[in-house]
Amino acid sequence: MPREVRERQMLDAAVAAFARHGYQSASMDDIAEAAGVSKPLVYLYLKSKEELFMACVRREVEALVATVREGTRELEAPADRQLWSGLRAFFTHTAARPDGVTVLSRARTQGEPYAQEVFAMRARITDIVRVLLARAAQDAGCDSALAEREVAGLAHALVGAAESLAEWANTTAGEGPSAKETAATLMNFCWTGLDSLMRGERWTPSGR
Amino acid sequence: MPREVRERQMLDAAVAAFARHGYQSASMDDIAEAAGVSKPLVYLYLKSKEELFMACVRREVEALVATVREGTRELEAPADRQLWSGLRAFFTHTAARPDGVTVLSRARTQGEPYAQEVFAMRARITDIVRVLLARAAQDAGCDSALAEREVAGLAHALVGAAESLAEWANTTAGEGPSAKETAATLMNFCWTGLDSLMRGERWTPSGR
Repeated sequence: MPREVRERQMLDAAVAAFARHGYQSASMDDIAEAAGVSKPLVYLYLKSKEELFMACVRREVEALVATVREGTRELEAPADRQLWSGLRAFFTHTAARPDGVTVLSRARTQGEPYAQEVFAMRARITDIVRVLLARAAQDAGCDSALAEREVAGLAHALVGAAESLAEWANTTAGEGPSAKETAATLMNFCWTGLDSLMRGERWTPSGR
Repeated sequence: MPREVRERQMLDAAVAAFARHGYQSASMDDIAEAAGVSKPLVYLYLKSKEELFMACVRREVEALVATVREGTRELEAPADRQLWSGLRAFFTHTAARPDGVTVLSRARTQGEPYAQEVFAMRARITDIVRVLLARAAQDAGCDSALAEREVAGLAHALVGAAESLAEWANTTAGEGPSAKETAATLMNFCWTGLDSLMRGERWTPSGR
């Protein structure tokens, strides 16, 4: 069996084990057994528990970033369709890989090197969203200096909201809302507001 | 000097040191010196570096929850005003206490017991927001079963967005937007959307 296939099996088993038991309690014996390989082979390929966990984190990070990039790729579509398609891809991915979501959430609490990977992922996804929102603002004829600043804030807000919703959906799995519903909730939450923002309408504390 | 005053000085110094240097690098000598007390007194009052850090985390958690509770207390006001007042209180607080924000963000990455405190805080704040949104939905005559489910999602989205914006504003301090601007950005982002959601208007992928 080629090395990359074996390695993928090890990572699959490791993601499941780290998600289920946490970093400390996951056992290298169980991971090797679940992957159908010997423990020395796991150490030969992935060196240590630390490096195995890091490899899991990096794989889940790359898979999630690729999903968002893929989902927002339709460059000819209007910005709201691209955002919709990106959100739906994001929530479909996170609903299909609950263990991956849990590993990324555990990575954030597992100390600096792992947390850094998750922060860097967040920055990459925020940047994709920021560019998309900036294009929407430009299309709507927004003043570009104002738009740039607000659009950066909106991108951070949207990514924080999506992350929070993905973790929430993960804890309510089964009885929880579907990926499509979750994406629609977030889209409803933000799009109309964003749309009026683009048009220069503002919510004010007294003006309603 | 009464014990609680001394303890507050120690916690002030510790929050600043943990925020600036991180948990590992912050030194108990520097914390004692900054607090104007001897190192043995820090250990007498707060026992260990672990417990000192936990005391910092708990203090910042309670201060932030109290701020949100206080900010949303105007029970007679319409829900959007309460939400506005809560968001503004939240961002005023986080802008005034950047070290507190950093400590809470470090706590999430510092291992389970600290991360748990932050997750529990998030759950408490989400609950305050959820009750507020549910009241807004009820006032707008929303079907209550549908509303309950969507409102829980919206509360998670809003809290995730606020958290993400507070951290972003913290990293862009000085040149960044003011607390009021940040609150208005988030309010604009969500309120119009929420409003149409309440009125039964929905964003759909094709229907725009």
